[in-house]
Amino acid sequence: MSKINLKPGIVNFPMPMTIVGATVQDKVNFMPAAWVSMASYAPPKIAVTLGNHHYTNKGIKEHGVFTVNFPSVEHMEPVDYCGLVTGEKEDKSDVFPVFYGELDKAPMVENFKLNVECRLDKIVVNGRNETFIGDIVGIYAEDSVLTDDKVDLDKLAPLILGQVTLEYRAIGEKTGPAWKIGKNYK
Amino acid sequence: MSKINLKPGIVNFPMPMTIVGATVQDKVNFMPAAWVSMASYAPPKIAVTLGNHHYTNKGIKEHGVFTVNFPSVEHMEPVDYCGLVTGEKEDKSDVFPVFYGELDKAPMVENFKLNVECRLDKIVVNGRNETFIGDIVGIYAEDSVLTDDKVDLDKLAPLILGQVTLEYRAIGEKTGPAWKIGKNYK
Repeated sequence: MSKINLKPGIVNFPMPMTIVGATVQDKVNFMPAAWVSMASYAPPKIAVTLGNHHYTNKGIKEHGVFTVNFPSVEHMEPVDYCGLVTGEKEDKSDVFPVFYGELDKAPMVENFKLNVECRLDKIVVNGRNETFIGDIVGIYAEDSVLTDDKVDLDKLAPLILGQVTLEYRAIGEKTGPAWKIGKNYK
Repeated sequence: MSKINLKPGIVNFPMPMTIVGATVQDKVNFMPAAWVSMASYAPPKIAVTLGNHHYTNKGIKEHGVFTVNFPSVEHMEPVDYCGLVTGEKEDKSDVFPVFYGELDKAPMVENFKLNVECRLDKIVVNGRNETFIGDIVGIYAEDSVLTDDKVDLDKLAPLILGQVTLEYRAIGEKTGPAWKIGKNYK
C-alpha cells in the first residue's frame, strides 16, 4: 500500500453544511459553516469554528447566542450564496425566512427542516479561527422529516461539503447499524 | 410549516466516522469517534471530542499525540467493533495494521486510505466530554484515492454516522460546486 504524505492543511472528509444564524448590529445575518461538531453530550453542546475575521462572530459576541441550521440539498444555491458575500457589505437578512425559539436575537432559518438554537458557552481561539461552543437550548425539526420522533436522514436530505474538492454532496445509502454490526467482527 | 421542538440532545446530522489512534501504557489502542471537525486553517488543527471516561484519553494525555483515521465503507465492521469494547479490558492493538509517520506513539491505521497525525495542542473540557485539539503534523493518503493530488471522496468512500438513528451511511452523489453555484442565486 503506497501512502502519499500530503502537506498539512484542510482534510477532505465529509463535513456537514450548516448556516450559522446571528444578529449583528440589530440585523439578521447568515453564514455557511461546515466546521461543526457535537462537543458535549450532557449538557448538550455544539461547536462551530469560524474564521475570526467574519461579520457573524461580532454578532455572536454581542448577543451571546447563535443558531446552527441544517439545509437540505434543495437549499444548496442560497446556502452557497451566503458564503460568496459578507454581511458587512451585503444585507443577507432576506435570503431566508426567519423564526425564533426561546432566545432573542437568535434567528433560525424557517424553511430548513432542522434548526438548533444555542446560548454561547465559550470561545476557544485556534490560530486565526474561533470555535464557538454553545449550549443547545432547542432543536427544531419539521414534522415531515421525523420518523418515530427522530430526524430521518433520508427525509432531511442533508447537504455535505467536500471542502478541498469544492463540492457539495448528498448523503448516501445506509450501509449498516451502528453499535451493532461490529458484533460480526469477532 | 410545522416545527417540532425536540428535547436538547445529540443532533442527527451526518458525522464523519473516524478511528482515533493512541498509545495507552505502551499499547496501541483504537477508538471510533464522529465528533470531529477542523478547528484551524493556519496552522492546520483538527478537533476530536471524546467522553472523558475513555481509555484513549489517557494515552493522548500521556504522550501528547493522537491520530485521526478515516475508514471507508468496507471497514465498517472492525470500526464498529472498536466501539463495542474498551481497550481497558480488551486488547484492540491487532484490529488494524499500524504504520507511523513523524510522531512516536501516534499509531495510524495502515489499511485506511486517509490518516492524520496530530500533536496535541490543547484540551477543552465540555461537560463530561473532552475536546482534543491537535496540530496536524501530517496527512497521509493512499495513492489510489487521489485525483490531481486531492483526496477524491468517490474513491475514498468515507463512512458517515447518523448517531441518533444508529446508522452508518455512505456518501452520496455530487450535487454542485461549492463557492460557485451560489452565483445562480441572485
